[in-house]
Amino acid sequence: MPELRRDPVIGRWVIISKERGKRPSDFVIVQERIKGGYCPLCPGNEHSTPPEVLAYGREKGAPPNGPGWSLRVVPNKYPALTSEGNLDKRTEGIYDKSNGIGTHEVIIETPRHDETMASMPVDQMLLIFRSYRARMQALAQDDRFKFIIIFKNFGQAAGASLEHSHSQLIALPVVPLNIKQELSGSMRYFEFKERCIFCDIIRQERSQNIRIVCENDDFITLCPFAPRSPFEMWCMPKDHHSSFPEISDSQLESLARLFSETMQRLDRALPKVPYNIMLHTSPIREENLEYYHWHLEIMPKLTMVAGFEWGTGFYINPTPPEESARFLREIDLNKKGTSDSLLSRKERLIS
Amino acid sequence: MPELRRDPVIGRWVIISKERGKRPSDFVIVQERIKGGYCPLCPGNEHSTPPEVLAYGREKGAPPNGPGWSLRVVPNKYPALTSEGNLDKRTEGIYDKSNGIGTHEVIIETPRHDETMASMPVDQMLLIFRSYRARMQALAQDDRFKFIIIFKNFGQAAGASLEHSHSQLIALPVVPLNIKQELSGSMRYFEFKERCIFCDIIRQERSQNIRIVCENDDFITLCPFAPRSPFEMWCMPKDHHSSFPEISDSQLESLARLFSETMQRLDRALPKVPYNIMLHTSPIREENLEYYHWHLEIMPKLTMVAGFEWGTGFYINPTPPEESARFLREIDLNKKGTSDSLLSRKERLIS
Repeated sequence: MPELRRDPVIGRWVIISKERGKRPSDFVIVQERIKGGYCPLCPGNEHSTPPEVLAYGREKGAPPNGPGWSLRVVPNKYPALTSEGNLDKRTEGIYDKSNGIGTHEVIIETPRHDETMASMPVDQMLLIFRSYRARMQALAQDDRFKFIIIFKNFGQAAGASLEHSHSQLIALPVVPLNIKQELSGSMRYFEFKERCIFCDIIRQERSQNIRIVCENDDFITLCPFAPRSPFEMWCMPKDHHSSFPEISDSQLESLARLFSETMQRLDRALPKVPYNIMLHTSPIREENLEYYHWHLEIMPKLTMVAGFEWGTGFYINPTPPEESARFLREIDLNKKGTSDSLLSRKERLIS
Repeated sequence: MPELRRDPVIGRWVIISKERGKRPSDFVIVQERIKGGYCPLCPGNEHSTPPEVLAYGREKGAPPNGPGWSLRVVPNKYPALTSEGNLDKRTEGIYDKSNGIGTHEVIIETPRHDETMASMPVDQMLLIFRSYRARMQALAQDDRFKFIIIFKNFGQAAGASLEHSHSQLIALPVVPLNIKQELSGSMRYFEFKERCIFCDIIRQERSQNIRIVCENDDFITLCPFAPRSPFEMWCMPKDHHSSFPEISDSQLESLARLFSETMQRLDRALPKVPYNIMLHTSPIREENLEYYHWHLEIMPKLTMVAGFEWGTGFYINPTPPEESARFLREIDLNKKGTSDSLLSRKERLIS
């Protein structure tokens, strides 16, 4: 029988419907394949992007916007928002609008065109998280911004228009609706319990031990109780921290290690599956919230978002998170090859 | 310069970013093409679906589940929820869950495999809305249900797995998050202004007259001020009504006429564009809300929902609703052919 589950933070309901997993059209993986061709993010093509705002790895004295880098951050050539000017809030009768002020940057995660988050060394993953922290800290100085979202689209089916591994950062002059919901949901819980709901989730997950994918001393990756999609994962600091940009160097290393492992497990389970990653953190100038907990959400693209999801905010998920977590957890990363991938174990997964 | 706009009902922000409309990958229409093959929804194949719960158009005395119908409603063969049993709400530590009780039906809108909402006669559209009303009224008698959502996915890119024109109905034991947000947003407005926010929107739109697509005595179709996608439209009763299933026969006819025109305009502007339609109405047993207003939302599938939208609930829309509305409004429905379609006028649209 299908099950209805409620996300404890924002109150979103999902239908965990194993029966629907049996529909052949419900579980088709659109594998991402490297097509090649001219890549504006590759070394040697630095002139194709706007001038960089951050770069790691070049030798001392090497000029900017040339090769030799191991990670590069550049403004998006087609920004969704503009960084020049002021908000100029105004009304049009009952409606509110303002200028589209913001910053839109691209984090070129690696010089290697064929590298992915699953294949890159931990050191490269560390550079990525270090660049997130650096850019978030720098942009938080701009009074016009209230929130910074970092996200990654991997694969065309997940919305990536370039195949070279990259993340994006958008600084916004307003706090977006989904984050507001998370903040107010976790605040309500705190008012009632005087505890952080995410800390309580981690505590319960560690005692139940049925939805944990992997963990180390500082971080934990789990499949949430009410996931929107099969193999959705959340990666969270075990101790209470509401703001990602406040992360320490040693925590950053620990995160890079666990996140690397997480992405390797996902890739072994569902080779080259398209996915989205979103960094959820507290708004700018609200760095120390006792009720909120920063985390990364990983959403593999395995199901379609259609009229039902649009209309309701309800999601139909054909795979219980306990099964997703078990598959991801049981993968032996030391064993080479994809013999234990879900492509061959699909029948077991959805039966 | 891009513009930030706030939806007045739920507070969702969108970026109206004409600059991004220029990216070639941003505005590709995946046209739906009829592929043919065996269709379980076609006349003669009635045995392929579960037994019908409603049918219109058969001659008196003709047996059910055979041909001769002009519209048919059947249970979904792969239901997301099950109609047998009780909710049995329970907790798992801090989590809430219950049995996945609900009803999932398919409205087979026409016997003609190649008919669409844009090509069918008004009489056929009327049957569709009549069947919505009938099924909603019938299912509202079941105490286990709190909300009924009706939606339609047209085209594979919009999530349709069958090409034969159909809508879907899901009766839910909980009120979904998006509807809750709309209800609480419009309630807050009412508490402050003592007026329905949707009535105020209609009043302002009729006086501004820049986002109206078409209207008749009883209904109006407009492009909302803060649309999530290019050519998003809302179709609403002009008088205050919160509950769709309470609609009168004459209103139903009027709706069928305006909705037919709306779908014809969309199809002429963007031939065979995939889309989602969602019916937003008040919860069951809350039929007469002075602060809420039922409406249909039409979302053409022209942009990608990726990490940014997932993470934030923020949408980037490359086409201002004033432009969408003007294009849709200026189409001459008496002129045959697609010479004024946006496929040929694309440059003007996004320049």
